[in-house]
Amino acid sequence: MADLSRRAFLGTGTAMGLGAMLAPAAEAKPYDPMPAKWDEEVDVLIVGSGFAGLAAALEAKKKNANVVVLEKMRTLGGNSIINGGIMAVPGSPMQKKNGIKDTPELLAEDMLREGQGLNDPNKVRTLVNQALPTWQWTRDELGVEWNMDHLVQEGGHSVPRCAITGNGSGSAIVTKQIAKCKELGIPLRTRVFMETIIRDTDGRVKGLKVREGYKFRDNTSGRVKYIRAKKGVILCYGGFGADVAYRMHQDPKLTDKFQTTNQPGATSEGWREANRIGCQIIQADWIQCGPWNNPDEKGMGIALYFAQSAAAMFGIWVNCATGKRFVDELANRKVRADAVINAANKGQLCIAVANKEGIEMMQQIHHNILAKQLERGVVYEFPTLKAMAEKFNIPEAALQKTVDEYNAGLKAGKDPLNRYINKDCKPMVNGPWYCSKLSPKVHHCMGGILTDMKGRALDCTNDKPIPGLYAAGESTGGVHGAVRLGSCAVLDCLVNGRICDQAVMDEA
Amino acid sequence: MADLSRRAFLGTGTAMGLGAMLAPAAEAKPYDPMPAKWDEEVDVLIVGSGFAGLAAALEAKKKNANVVVLEKMRTLGGNSIINGGIMAVPGSPMQKKNGIKDTPELLAEDMLREGQGLNDPNKVRTLVNQALPTWQWTRDELGVEWNMDHLVQEGGHSVPRCAITGNGSGSAIVTKQIAKCKELGIPLRTRVFMETIIRDTDGRVKGLKVREGYKFRDNTSGRVKYIRAKKGVILCYGGFGADVAYRMHQDPKLTDKFQTTNQPGATSEGWREANRIGCQIIQADWIQCGPWNNPDEKGMGIALYFAQSAAAMFGIWVNCATGKRFVDELANRKVRADAVINAANKGQLCIAVANKEGIEMMQQIHHNILAKQLERGVVYEFPTLKAMAEKFNIPEAALQKTVDEYNAGLKAGKDPLNRYINKDCKPMVNGPWYCSKLSPKVHHCMGGILTDMKGRALDCTNDKPIPGLYAAGESTGGVHGAVRLGSCAVLDCLVNGRICDQAVMDEA
Repeated sequence: MADLSRRAFLGTGTAMGLGAMLAPAAEAKPYDPMPAKWDEEVDVLIVGSGFAGLAAALEAKKKNANVVVLEKMRTLGGNSIINGGIMAVPGSPMQKKNGIKDTPELLAEDMLREGQGLNDPNKVRTLVNQALPTWQWTRDELGVEWNMDHLVQEGGHSVPRCAITGNGSGSAIVTKQIAKCKELGIPLRTRVFMETIIRDTDGRVKGLKVREGYKFRDNTSGRVKYIRAKKGVILCYGGFGADVAYRMHQDPKLTDKFQTTNQPGATSEGWREANRIGCQIIQADWIQCGPWNNPDEKGMGIALYFAQSAAAMFGIWVNCATGKRFVDELANRKVRADAVINAANKGQLCIAVANKEGIEMMQQIHHNILAKQLERGVVYEFPTLKAMAEKFNIPEAALQKTVDEYNAGLKAGKDPLNRYINKDCKPMVNGPWYCSKLSPKVHHCMGGILTDMKGRALDCTNDKPIPGLYAAGESTGGVHGAVRLGSCAVLDCLVNGRICDQAVMDEA
Repeated sequence: MADLSRRAFLGTGTAMGLGAMLAPAAEAKPYDPMPAKWDEEVDVLIVGSGFAGLAAALEAKKKNANVVVLEKMRTLGGNSIINGGIMAVPGSPMQKKNGIKDTPELLAEDMLREGQGLNDPNKVRTLVNQALPTWQWTRDELGVEWNMDHLVQEGGHSVPRCAITGNGSGSAIVTKQIAKCKELGIPLRTRVFMETIIRDTDGRVKGLKVREGYKFRDNTSGRVKYIRAKKGVILCYGGFGADVAYRMHQDPKLTDKFQTTNQPGATSEGWREANRIGCQIIQADWIQCGPWNNPDEKGMGIALYFAQSAAAMFGIWVNCATGKRFVDELANRKVRADAVINAANKGQLCIAVANKEGIEMMQQIHHNILAKQLERGVVYEFPTLKAMAEKFNIPEAALQKTVDEYNAGLKAGKDPLNRYINKDCKPMVNGPWYCSKLSPKVHHCMGGILTDMKGRALDCTNDKPIPGLYAAGESTGGVHGAVRLGSCAVLDCLVNGRICDQAVMDEA
């Protein structure tokens, strides 16, 4: 640091906001030619039919707006319909029933801590305060069935606070949202692709150029139509987890080697179009991957229960090229996923390893799951460690040394990689031995469009709302920061989707 | 994780690139009205007069282009002229003289590891391969004086490889660049503000609307002028470290409580304008702060030598509100700065603490610096720990307990926070005691405009180069990833600035 002292003698600027600086200049400059005529006129146009889009639609309709929802895929629901169906609800009846003390403030603390302070504290506050009333809304107004007895506790949450839908899937919410939309006469149009957000010379978003009868991945397919949105356009198009080129701009190590848990339509066209018309895309490089996923099954799969509940807690994770452990197996998802990804990008396979005792611990939680894992071929069984080393080309002596050092660490009460030592951990000695391949899958995009507290997209030139443009859900950034906690996606989408009914109040 | 298994039964998309998807559609859509007439025509217009801008100017001139450099501030040089003046050069004569083995590959490995794989491996490769020839260019063609005997080793580098300028400042490079520009007749114009990048309906950047005689922070000041750039515009406007509003969009915890080491002109206007015309701004949330800075002195200061070389290595860092340590004092800059910032945003002051023995270690490296630190009032001296606790309202018993636990950890060979234990660490028992306030300062923006390997800015709609638009240096993203290593800023700016001479080849 010897080079730094000289800077001390040069004055540096006092920090300043932009307001002062750009006050008189700057009005929205990008604009598009208006269509010769609009083919259709509505009050509110919503792009995307997941939790957020449908929530926005229902609220806008309640305020008597003429609303239309557009979905580029053949089916409604986006990623939401394959979501895990849990929602963080501090103060729920289930918490009361189970004697769990919780507050919105405690959830906010959890979100900000895990988000590494990259999330907007005001947005977090709205989310936690609206959690209970929003959950009640899903139950009372939409008729969503919730498990009224049990809760789950996801990583990063201080207490069990995640309400579970009756069928354990986000589809329990989405199908009720769709039914309500239909009941209220809100058109939900599939295979309609947003090609252009039409922003006029006055800076206002006036509507969309779309393609009806669109075939996914053929951007010249379908019939062009111009739809005017008199009140506003609400962008709820979700994340880009399935779009390798775009995600590699944000994080170059997420190559096409890595799968995604997302539906195929989770691509970047909406992100690019929002950028083009002057939105600010923030924090798009925070892309959540599950570190424990397995490349030989689709989606979330079942190997992860082995990798986490057997190997990470009671076994080890090993780089096959070296025979060594490579990360604290209980570090956060980001740290672990990055470690596996970086190895994979060097051509090195990482595996999760456990023996008999680890399997027993796993099956205490996930009853009899081993049989299914073996049957699907995502967990392998070996009589000896040597046999495992041979199968995966692991340097055998190095692997044995790794196990010995891990065992010695257990005995000494100090793990070589400083991993937390669970009291039930036992030295790994007896076979059979088990392992699963590790290959993180892209799961959630934390970043996105910068919006204000009313869901209005902010112009990059002056931080003022772009008139007529709103956004909610995974298409936005700043709510979750570095890490989106499990059960906070549903919360984000529903709360912020509903807030976008502000569009109805918009001056056209 | 019980909620996840259901996803296994739903197919998920195979990853796909954008190329296939957008191939036929998408051409650059944003455009600006052309000026009625251009006030001036040049081949290449360069925005910013730091390392990158001046390097680009010299190379373009060498290819016989008519080049003009614009600088919004009163003085040339931007942050570069107050830079620490070190440059990573694997294979330098100084390394050979000192018997240090190093290769471009080893530097690449260091950059990618510390960058957490967020950096583009191809960009890293270019940087490390061009390091030696670029350093030679500064010496042989510009006449920059380098210390030909010594090297320094910055954090994250595997070996000492940072060449030091003769005067230990970036000014040694910038002044030679300026002199060369003047010798070649390149106009370097100060107080010229880039208001608008003019992008035509064909997608090409045709020139700039500028304000000559601009007064910083008054964006209506100066005389409007339209300058056509027949070959290209090169954006080298640097980072936004001094712009609180913009940096809080990216990282909300970097409020106006935190100073910057940057010059006052490190603001966001260029970033916003690049966004407006369809550039992709990536990784802008990676903002480097020095964790060891002191709020009671400007710029880098001298308290940091105490905080690092006395307290972090041989003492402790303490949160005054709790009397406890709050972070591994030898964790990376990002982890430590975030910890101090998060405490500050809760109204809690963190301090660096050392006693007599720590001071002795510091002064072995930084001779007699304590007297200066005390004189400036940035390091405090106390006869007892109790007196320190009183002065800073630290719970005294908690503080004593923290010290006792730290001492016990030294004895046991295991630090309570798993900090690396230096063999020279001694239990903290004897006074006098010393401390300095901690308040990170914003230092470097790792993110910025996405460019290709020729320095061409890529259009957000289709990832193709925006004709006529180039960028280099701190205004760009993807070179450093999560962490920019000390001595790699000069390298980045000079190498990539020179690459932007590609603009001269551009088809107008």
